[in-house]
Amino acid sequence: MSKVQPRTLSGFMELLPARQAQFDRMVEILRQTYSLYGFTPLDTPLIEASEVLLAKGGGETEKQIYRFMKGDTDLSLRFDLTVPLAKYVALNYGKLTFPFRRFQIGKVYRGERAQRGRFREFYQADIDVIGDGKLDISNEAEIPAIIYQAFTRLGLKRFQIRVNNRKILNGFYAMLGLTEKSGDIMRTVDKLDKIGAEKVKALLMDEEIGLSEAQAGEILTFIAITGSNEAVLAALEGYRGRNEVFDQGLSELNTVVKYLAAFGVPQDHFAVDLTIARGLDYYTGTVYETTMLDHPEIGSICSGGRYDNLAEYYTDKQLPGVGISIGLTRLFFVLEDQGYLNDALNTAPADVLILPMTDDLSPAIALATTLRQAGIRTQIHAEQKKFKQKISYADKLSIPYAVFLGEDEISSGVCAVKDLSTGQQVKLSPAEAVAHIQAGLEKLNQGKPILDKGE
Amino acid sequence: MSKVQPRTLSGFMELLPARQAQFDRMVEILRQTYSLYGFTPLDTPLIEASEVLLAKGGGETEKQIYRFMKGDTDLSLRFDLTVPLAKYVALNYGKLTFPFRRFQIGKVYRGERAQRGRFREFYQADIDVIGDGKLDISNEAEIPAIIYQAFTRLGLKRFQIRVNNRKILNGFYAMLGLTEKSGDIMRTVDKLDKIGAEKVKALLMDEEIGLSEAQAGEILTFIAITGSNEAVLAALEGYRGRNEVFDQGLSELNTVVKYLAAFGVPQDHFAVDLTIARGLDYYTGTVYETTMLDHPEIGSICSGGRYDNLAEYYTDKQLPGVGISIGLTRLFFVLEDQGYLNDALNTAPADVLILPMTDDLSPAIALATTLRQAGIRTQIHAEQKKFKQKISYADKLSIPYAVFLGEDEISSGVCAVKDLSTGQQVKLSPAEAVAHIQAGLEKLNQGKPILDKGE
Repeated sequence: MSKVQPRTLSGFMELLPARQAQFDRMVEILRQTYSLYGFTPLDTPLIEASEVLLAKGGGETEKQIYRFMKGDTDLSLRFDLTVPLAKYVALNYGKLTFPFRRFQIGKVYRGERAQRGRFREFYQADIDVIGDGKLDISNEAEIPAIIYQAFTRLGLKRFQIRVNNRKILNGFYAMLGLTEKSGDIMRTVDKLDKIGAEKVKALLMDEEIGLSEAQAGEILTFIAITGSNEAVLAALEGYRGRNEVFDQGLSELNTVVKYLAAFGVPQDHFAVDLTIARGLDYYTGTVYETTMLDHPEIGSICSGGRYDNLAEYYTDKQLPGVGISIGLTRLFFVLEDQGYLNDALNTAPADVLILPMTDDLSPAIALATTLRQAGIRTQIHAEQKKFKQKISYADKLSIPYAVFLGEDEISSGVCAVKDLSTGQQVKLSPAEAVAHIQAGLEKLNQGKPILDKGE
Repeated sequence: MSKVQPRTLSGFMELLPARQAQFDRMVEILRQTYSLYGFTPLDTPLIEASEVLLAKGGGETEKQIYRFMKGDTDLSLRFDLTVPLAKYVALNYGKLTFPFRRFQIGKVYRGERAQRGRFREFYQADIDVIGDGKLDISNEAEIPAIIYQAFTRLGLKRFQIRVNNRKILNGFYAMLGLTEKSGDIMRTVDKLDKIGAEKVKALLMDEEIGLSEAQAGEILTFIAITGSNEAVLAALEGYRGRNEVFDQGLSELNTVVKYLAAFGVPQDHFAVDLTIARGLDYYTGTVYETTMLDHPEIGSICSGGRYDNLAEYYTDKQLPGVGISIGLTRLFFVLEDQGYLNDALNTAPADVLILPMTDDLSPAIALATTLRQAGIRTQIHAEQKKFKQKISYADKLSIPYAVFLGEDEISSGVCAVKDLSTGQQVKLSPAEAVAHIQAGLEKLNQGKPILDKGE
């Protein structure tokens, strides 16, 4: 038979078993953390009617979309989890209870140009709180606090959540009479890290944007406000009273900063950063970006913010919300690439490999049942292979314990439990074996999935 | 702004939050059960190159496939989890350790004709054990034993795993000199439940198949072998010695039945059933189907079997395996439809709703942090709403506990914990509140997701 070359598409992450176990453990921690904060899991289809998914239309994203016909139906794969959420909430409005808090961890699709570290199929891990008409400001502090918790539980240490408020930006540009140009200005200011202050100033004053030197100077002074959160907030007080929107934004930012501390986020893990804008037409209040302090080059690993209208393309209902999204596949790629994954954690498919030494497997099966009932992941190696090959199987998979069961053990009601990392072997009754193995596993499963050497 | 009507495509299951919680709990139980037996989780892409996914080509399935171009690339959505497994194993052969035991729970796509209870996007929950060259017969008993465990942990009681062996069928038809016609015969025999023995006999003797009355009689006698597993196996002994393949199949079936009991599957939950064939070209040994005893009309809810060549379209390596698949979305649909879902289980997004009675939320946030650290899923209701509305929010979502925190409670270091099902309210310190709520939750989370009234 002629063979087809097996391959996985480029831009699609497909992990080997031990890596997959690490990835799944991270997903499980995110699920647990999101659940602890009262978010309900959702699972929407990967395929939607194009007319629904692309209701907003246009934009750069549209070119990247996987769109196709099936019969007479124009279909698209979801490119984020926000549009499906908007559809879900609009569709089920009467059946949901608000504020509606949901998390969704799922794959999305974008036909990006293939390059290292860029994925066409990738996981996003989103949380959103949606209000019906109104939504309290405290949610804008809780959302980044959840992210702080999530990353901390994963083991990440050297990261910072950067916070800004769109009303401060909009109010500031209104003060200068530059509301019309604020989009161009923010796009230019966004280049600050890359090209420096002088070039930003020059761009602001060039023909296209056309600011005066005084205006450009004001903007550069404004975005140069840095330092401790206290210092930045104090400097912003100097602008108060000149624009109502600005003042509201500053009050909100003060509240968010206060509650972030109450939610237990340490001062050094969040920073007010006036350069963060997050797009132009969607976010209306607090905005977030999250950076790994030792890898600023990878950009934001978790972003989001407050919006006023989740579902305006589907409904007249005013549905304000606040949400944040972790780009999980890319984050995992970076963590692996930079050596952050904790390979000491148990990634074996089983905790115990039973090696039966008799033809009749019944005693081995009975022992496996006892171990499994105690929650110990157990595999019986029943293949006709040499002893050495069986031990090598456990070694290759990093299975922590081997259990030998021969005629002698069976007749005296014990089994021989070998710790494969120390080589230590003990004869134990099934109940003793359970306790012995459970104690060992507890140690082995103690660490976190990410080893952040910093701090 | 003109609105787009939000909708979800027909044939795509999208659940309301409480149902989603029930579905996720079932998935979690399957994950845990599969893991207990030493299976490693895999997560392959939903999209594959069409040439890879359709290497086998042809057949009824191909018409149902979601296939499309993206740029110059011919892509298809996976229609099962077996072909991606074959690709994965062939591609990573040198990096895997055999026997390779993997589970995968994921969505697959088939453009079926839309009808009630038929899905175009649906979950499959698969386990497979793949050997390198050889695979021990005990795996063919362990696989259905895992399914027995999984269904039992879900709460299903009235189900039966039906077992047969393709070698017995092939050997039997060879005895009669009917190997060439065995495909047609098996397809006809498959209609037994629907049309009855007389019509099957007539069909076997009609022009198309053309058996003699004696041959048709032999076949009907054979498939009429029913009764206890012991009785069926005894009757099959009567055919021993006439065909080598048959004899081998019978020995295998005897071993599988013996080990099924050793693995703890009760006699009444598995049955040797000679009418089960499971397709014609893939399975080569033990085959399985699983039926709900009170709903035979929905067909098999979990099927699979032993195969000799997992990946023959990709590699010359001989990769025998045994696997089984639960059609999870359809099963969930049936369970909901037939009233099997245990709605008494906690499906709320949170265990506790904190109602702060002060403007400053900091004490409420501190209490929430304490509860969350103890693993209690906690939400703060911070919206500006009337007390009655906040209680109604908890009621609608079936949140089991409300906690009130006013000036009095804060100054005396307590909180008022109300059990919303009994109305009982107690003032407790945070530590006492944790213990009180944990004890209540333990009771609430005790049941299984499926309530099978049978037995």
